[in-house]
Amino acid sequence: MHTRGYAALAAKAPLTPFTFERRDLRPRDVAFDVLFAGICHSDIHQAREEWGPSIFPMVPGHEIVGVVTAVGDEVSSFRVGERIGVGVFVDACRTCEHCLAGYDQYCLNGFTPTYNGLERDGVTIAQGGYANRFVVDERYAVHVAESLDAAGAAPLLCAGITLYSPLRHWKVAPGQKVGIIGLGGLGHMGVQLAAAMGAEVTVFSHSAGKRDDALALGATDVVLTKDPATLASLSDRFDLIINTVSADIDLTPYLRLLKLHATLVVVGLSGVPMQIYQGTLLDGRRSLAGSMIGSMGELQEMMDFCAEHNITSKVEVIAASDINTAYERTVASDVKYRFVIDAATF
Amino acid sequence: MHTRGYAALAAKAPLTPFTFERRDLRPRDVAFDVLFAGICHSDIHQAREEWGPSIFPMVPGHEIVGVVTAVGDEVSSFRVGERIGVGVFVDACRTCEHCLAGYDQYCLNGFTPTYNGLERDGVTIAQGGYANRFVVDERYAVHVAESLDAAGAAPLLCAGITLYSPLRHWKVAPGQKVGIIGLGGLGHMGVQLAAAMGAEVTVFSHSAGKRDDALALGATDVVLTKDPATLASLSDRFDLIINTVSADIDLTPYLRLLKLHATLVVVGLSGVPMQIYQGTLLDGRRSLAGSMIGSMGELQEMMDFCAEHNITSKVEVIAASDINTAYERTVASDVKYRFVIDAATF
Repeated sequence: MHTRGYAALAAKAPLTPFTFERRDLRPRDVAFDVLFAGICHSDIHQAREEWGPSIFPMVPGHEIVGVVTAVGDEVSSFRVGERIGVGVFVDACRTCEHCLAGYDQYCLNGFTPTYNGLERDGVTIAQGGYANRFVVDERYAVHVAESLDAAGAAPLLCAGITLYSPLRHWKVAPGQKVGIIGLGGLGHMGVQLAAAMGAEVTVFSHSAGKRDDALALGATDVVLTKDPATLASLSDRFDLIINTVSADIDLTPYLRLLKLHATLVVVGLSGVPMQIYQGTLLDGRRSLAGSMIGSMGELQEMMDFCAEHNITSKVEVIAASDINTAYERTVASDVKYRFVIDAATF
Repeated sequence: MHTRGYAALAAKAPLTPFTFERRDLRPRDVAFDVLFAGICHSDIHQAREEWGPSIFPMVPGHEIVGVVTAVGDEVSSFRVGERIGVGVFVDACRTCEHCLAGYDQYCLNGFTPTYNGLERDGVTIAQGGYANRFVVDERYAVHVAESLDAAGAAPLLCAGITLYSPLRHWKVAPGQKVGIIGLGGLGHMGVQLAAAMGAEVTVFSHSAGKRDDALALGATDVVLTKDPATLASLSDRFDLIINTVSADIDLTPYLRLLKLHATLVVVGLSGVPMQIYQGTLLDGRRSLAGSMIGSMGELQEMMDFCAEHNITSKVEVIAASDINTAYERTVASDVKYRFVIDAATF
């Protein structure tokens, strides 16, 4: 299927228009016209080869919302004309212990990323969502409610699920105190989702200018992280803290804010190891955990939850020709809170 | 009450005979003759002022078993002639959220350590178990079964509970795979306790000479940590791993052995921060946690569990005059697996 998109042809090269072929429909495949594709910071890391060797040409994009145009003979869960979403992975071994338990994101043989990876045949380069068309196995797609703004729904597929999954896994409940470190693409989803679950949400930010936004998104408190005394005064009270900052920050002051038996979850990669003192974990039997996106089951559950609570990402919609400028602005944290590409412009 | 013991009179000074007065019995106090007191590595750290300022003179010892000689008017749980045990703390604020929930070990106002701390009056120096007599509030003492070897039971009060509490908190169940890093005073208790809970226990040791001991204690497997290939071959299979080594070791290879959603618990302090890569935690949603001794409820539960399964520490009983030699041998890891002082020799 002839497809127009944008690709990085080499590491650190600007993205340029790129045409390529999507596969013909297999029995369980769904084809769709892309409506919007979000720009995730990890797109930039991979296009610039900052996380180890990348595969080029690379069409990035793993926050994809579209409308179904055709379905394979055995497709049971999608029909032409329905909205559809695709996230960070498009296949997995489907046979390992984790896949069989529904945790394809932790596939022991490695999931197939939506881009910058090979399909299970070991040959075909998977190409992502910065494109006008997409083809995916129905197992790795979710339904997206018509009631949601399609552009704002796209970032739910990565930024949203990356926060939703740990909030659910650690069983956030009404009245609990949840801390979100950082108010960017990930953090602004965490605030909305945790607030909708009934939690009291505190945002930790180094930027005083984000206070009004944080409160509008549902936070009950905003703490400026430049003030160690304020941080220290909040010790032993949080049920869950999620660090959405991928820069190298000292987590010790935040670990001290956890109440007895509580957990701080990291969802980003800084590239350098965290320095963690044993005593900070021993005191109050605290945990430091990681969490990576979410399962397909959680992804659909989150999509339904967001439809119910009318939660979307706050986005700035751009044309394909603005991708390289958007990359620069994303790196400079100059976006509130996510760039989304209008696929009509490919 | 006139008491004979051994004390460090200054940092790094050898321990010497020392006489002092225990308090007169308060209504809820229990007085007992000490039978045995274990030597914990933390005694040495504190006597040598390796963990920050210490209080001298210091009578160390927080693994204490004895026989009740007198009880206060309001004591309800102990009678003269019964066996009694005292562990790492002898008081706490009793009013904070943690104390009210039974977690005195995590008292928000700081528990009163058995030694190297001040009583709640802020003046009286708490003195530990290297002595012939002891006085304690009944709330901070446990019953010790007559069926247990008294010398071998003493280390249960710290080494035992330090392993028992995380094994219970993380709900170790029959058939689960538990890893114990290090086979010393703590580790050899962890192997016995986890095996008695029905787990399959793997010991990770840098010493090939510990294999037979580990198997005799109940381990099903012993892995030499000098061989990275063997470690790597065991990835994604452990339900719980407890690091009992207080030296600075790289935990990354061990975190990779955890199965999906599982936890590695540290119970010691190395003095330097751990270097933890976010990716190791993100992959498989793993957790790194700390755990510190246990609650009084867990301590009694463990004592009963050990009586039921006839579990004690493997000990070398020494006279008081051997304490300084025992300290040197403990630092050199030349003990299988705990020194215990015969209190008749004070």
